[in-house]
Amino acid sequence: MKARRPGPTVRARVHELGAEGERRHEDRLATEEPLEIRLAWPGAHARRVWVTMRTPGHDFELAAGWLLHEGLLAAPPHTIAYCTDVDLAPEQEFNVVTVTLDRPPTRDPGHRHAGSGSSACGVCGKDTISEALAAPSAARWTGGLPSADVVRGLPDALRASQKVFDLTGGVHAAGLATADGELLVVREDVGRHNAVDKVTGARVVAGASPAGAALVVSGRAGFELVQKAVAAGSGALVSVGAPTSLAVSLAEEAGLALYGFTSPRRTVRYA
Amino acid sequence: MKARRPGPTVRARVHELGAEGERRHEDRLATEEPLEIRLAWPGAHARRVWVTMRTPGHDFELAAGWLLHEGLLAAPPHTIAYCTDVDLAPEQEFNVVTVTLDRPPTRDPGHRHAGSGSSACGVCGKDTISEALAAPSAARWTGGLPSADVVRGLPDALRASQKVFDLTGGVHAAGLATADGELLVVREDVGRHNAVDKVTGARVVAGASPAGAALVVSGRAGFELVQKAVAAGSGALVSVGAPTSLAVSLAEEAGLALYGFTSPRRTVRYA
Repeated sequence: MKARRPGPTVRARVHELGAEGERRHEDRLATEEPLEIRLAWPGAHARRVWVTMRTPGHDFELAAGWLLHEGLLAAPPHTIAYCTDVDLAPEQEFNVVTVTLDRPPTRDPGHRHAGSGSSACGVCGKDTISEALAAPSAARWTGGLPSADVVRGLPDALRASQKVFDLTGGVHAAGLATADGELLVVREDVGRHNAVDKVTGARVVAGASPAGAALVVSGRAGFELVQKAVAAGSGALVSVGAPTSLAVSLAEEAGLALYGFTSPRRTVRYA
Repeated sequence: MKARRPGPTVRARVHELGAEGERRHEDRLATEEPLEIRLAWPGAHARRVWVTMRTPGHDFELAAGWLLHEGLLAAPPHTIAYCTDVDLAPEQEFNVVTVTLDRPPTRDPGHRHAGSGSSACGVCGKDTISEALAAPSAARWTGGLPSADVVRGLPDALRASQKVFDLTGGVHAAGLATADGELLVVREDVGRHNAVDKVTGARVVAGASPAGAALVVSGRAGFELVQKAVAAGSGALVSVGAPTSLAVSLAEEAGLALYGFTSPRRTVRYA
């Protein structure tokens, strides 16, 4: 049996129930499938380091970007490939990506994540911020920053590039912009964090710097997105929604410019 | 040093940059802090099973609801308490909750989650659905279901109960409704999945059934939210946004009515 590669959208029959009548029609849904990321290096077998529910497409970028944001990618990967293990059923082949490094990562890839249940340390916002700032890839942006005029225009520019959203109305987007507002790369995903991972990974895979003047996102700005912007080394995070308390605290500590509630009419700077 | 209990919002000085002028003012942000959930039972020390970034408040409910949705809560917990271990700094005390069961859980609490890095099994949407359906608490809803009229009214009813959103513009909400559209409980959180955990946990802590005619959520309907609605045993999931492909597949398999793009004018039934 040959593996079929999943696409970013699927067709579905739906039943629309309006206040003044009903109709049945065909609709498109954003595809959501698990992606397992495995990490290998010389002398170490590939091991699972993360599983995320994502929209298929740009999977290698998603893997590379996630690893960079976690501080596990000190240099571009040696290879990134779909897994063709004999133990995988055909429908799983395009849901497992193996990233091979030239040398061991600078920290234990199994240590950090929440679900692991192994660490005995406590948690508070202060610890979380310290941990994020300790990530090896966190270098501060020293280039130019976008003006308020440019910032206010970024969400509309991002929206104009959202091909999957146009079909489904159901995905988030992220983009990396220059100080003049030019979008270098735009990626979409059902998970807002995945869209950001794909943007950073696209730069890594292309051999470019993952840092840019501004990372722009279609949703709200929580801690996790600020953490990714800081890890990539970008200058600003521009969001259309509200930031959280911890997002503002981390942005302040890291020297990241944080904008929320951004529209052509206004933006609010929080840090 | 005495621990200070974090509230759902914090004050912040912000800088609003409008197209026609600037002003500085005070704003309120939704608080985001990590919560560690520990699980204990007779003969077993408390162990960390999950950490989530959440808005403080209703933390015991969040812990109970998350455990139920994961199939780890066959009966109401014996006790739920903040952790006062000597190894915790004061600012961490209200960020760690220990749930003690009367007997061991029906599955290993460390096994299922993504970040654990220990399991060798592959992943695909089909596996993910099978796993969700195999959760021990998944019983089908046999009560009445809301009419299309009631469904179209649920998001506005939910919105009218959102106190933290009114202050911050930055939190998700979830509610459990009867077939007539009465909201039994409403909870808010920066994480949409946490809001759903809190709703289910509120019912568990009150000694009531976690199942209801309809779970209504302020955001989109991804796989994870459908999984929680199915695990709680509810009849329908009503969302204001788009569902994903895997959300629709799981809802169909589990017999859950799934509504998206819901407004007073229309709703779309996907499963």
